[in-house]
Amino acid sequence: MSETKSKFLEVYSVLKSELLNDPAFEFTDDSRQWVERMLDYNVPGGKLNRGLSVVDSYKLLQGRQLTDDEVFLACVLGWCIEWLQAYFLVLDDIMDNSHTRRGQPCWFRVPKVGMIAANDGVILRNQIPRILKNHFKGKPYYVDLLDLFNEVEFQTASGQMIDLITTIEGEKDLSKYSLPLHRRIVQYKTAYYSFYLPVACALLMAGENLDNHTSVKDILVQMGIYFQVQDDYLDCFGDPQVIGKIGTDIEDFKCSWLVVKALEICNEEQKKTLYGNYGKADPANVAKVKALYKDLDLQGVFLEYESKSYETLVSSIEAHPSKAVQAVLKSFLGKIYKRQK
Amino acid sequence: MSETKSKFLEVYSVLKSELLNDPAFEFTDDSRQWVERMLDYNVPGGKLNRGLSVVDSYKLLQGRQLTDDEVFLACVLGWCIEWLQAYFLVLDDIMDNSHTRRGQPCWFRVPKVGMIAANDGVILRNQIPRILKNHFKGKPYYVDLLDLFNEVEFQTASGQMIDLITTIEGEKDLSKYSLPLHRRIVQYKTAYYSFYLPVACALLMAGENLDNHTSVKDILVQMGIYFQVQDDYLDCFGDPQVIGKIGTDIEDFKCSWLVVKALEICNEEQKKTLYGNYGKADPANVAKVKALYKDLDLQGVFLEYESKSYETLVSSIEAHPSKAVQAVLKSFLGKIYKRQK
Repeated sequence: MSETKSKFLEVYSVLKSELLNDPAFEFTDDSRQWVERMLDYNVPGGKLNRGLSVVDSYKLLQGRQLTDDEVFLACVLGWCIEWLQAYFLVLDDIMDNSHTRRGQPCWFRVPKVGMIAANDGVILRNQIPRILKNHFKGKPYYVDLLDLFNEVEFQTASGQMIDLITTIEGEKDLSKYSLPLHRRIVQYKTAYYSFYLPVACALLMAGENLDNHTSVKDILVQMGIYFQVQDDYLDCFGDPQVIGKIGTDIEDFKCSWLVVKALEICNEEQKKTLYGNYGKADPANVAKVKALYKDLDLQGVFLEYESKSYETLVSSIEAHPSKAVQAVLKSFLGKIYKRQK
Repeated sequence: MSETKSKFLEVYSVLKSELLNDPAFEFTDDSRQWVERMLDYNVPGGKLNRGLSVVDSYKLLQGRQLTDDEVFLACVLGWCIEWLQAYFLVLDDIMDNSHTRRGQPCWFRVPKVGMIAANDGVILRNQIPRILKNHFKGKPYYVDLLDLFNEVEFQTASGQMIDLITTIEGEKDLSKYSLPLHRRIVQYKTAYYSFYLPVACALLMAGENLDNHTSVKDILVQMGIYFQVQDDYLDCFGDPQVIGKIGTDIEDFKCSWLVVKALEICNEEQKKTLYGNYGKADPANVAKVKALYKDLDLQGVFLEYESKSYETLVSSIEAHPSKAVQAVLKSFLGKIYKRQK
């Protein structure tokens, strides 16, 4: 394990212990145990990329070794992002009626939890401002941190809303799917909190005014969109052994980049095939969609999209006046370019 | 309709229109329509007491007629509390599997809504900081408003958590119910947001530091507890014609002040009756519990609790150094003392 990661995991224990002794609430023994189990189950079990990238970005922005205090605070902000993610995942799993998450049953499927999971999601969300208050109240950028987390949470929930209402049960309608809709869902639901938020946290810690960094936001949002397109591609064309799951976007009638691209370039007959087979659980239907994707050479279309995105991102990054900011953005891009999982 | 109330309702339209044109999100036509319908269905349909009391309290604190701008801003904060309430009710109804709310089906039971309601709750919650940012960013108390709403939401969700985990399906256990547990649930789940929050908003608008008003908080929390005890009492002994619903706390195994008080004063035989009949849907069981409440003279016990609470509250209020603050607190108390609905 990297040094950053083990430090990061230590900070989780500190934050958990503070939350379990929050003076703003009188815990009962039962409720304290409940929260502890709920946190351990939902917060630290992911890859922690978003959280860790706050520490890495802050280090690159400062261009030097960080003090222990600085590392601690960057880890705290990193965990706030992981908390935000946990909150969304707990609620998303309820809404999607999902079964597993990170290799274990979804929290709401754990015995005795059930719909209490919805309130647990709310608790997770409410712990973020508790953590921020404990560690950042009094800093000149405290109010900017609150505004940032509020804005990004709003955007994520709004993206989730468009995703949910375009796929309402019983209204499966491919004619609604388009590249602009796909871009909107992906940008709001994923890009802001996964790509912009970690860097914005690091910028605030470095004393920057986010209003002066709209180009950084734009670049990270573009990178987030590119990341999600990769995700959509790997769901169908990735190696299940490598990505660790078997994709079901076709069965689930997802507004995937692949189906949106297919709709854009297919002829009338192929469109009929898509309409007749997309969003059905039967493997025969799924196979027909996959065959169509191959006929349309979506793998080639994706490879072209990937290199174009890369080139555009690199030139946007190199146009940025600060070498430190460039380093942050290049580090993000390097982690995802041509990824296989 | 009072002048304040019609002004208050006008402000709702302004806020809604701002939210439907929020530059932080690119609405699709469908999603804009969805949010508008969701807001109209869930936000303005209650009694609006909490929201209106911000305006009343601010007027009493200032001790003069308010300017149009001041009325507008107080209404905005009032609506933020109504938004907070809507968010909690939408999620609570999902968790309790409720059927109706304010005389109409719960939002999640409306066709095509279903579990999307959970995200709609999150959207409602996220609109609060959007509203606050639109109207209070730049005010000296902006950060205090954010902290206040965060703290009160945290307390409400925490109170809801204890309530939920003490009544987990299949673990109905009366021995857990006690006056201290009842007090904790009520204080956190209801008192902070219904009683303290409106006055705290008014105090912030009046330029006060909330740290100097812990006694106001204590008094309002006590009043909130008293209010909920009345609610528990009326659920069983109120006139359904007057309160507008038929109480089902006994059937629902609620941790009501009545059952907690009954457990405290009953003998061993009566305790057996409670254990054998509480929390069952059969009217015969309910009747046995009600008969026991009468044997224990819970109506008399409540009347005594009511006058004691009133006396204590009045003397706490009169000990407060500011006549304006006294007027605010007395106004709240006057509205609930000996209420029949």
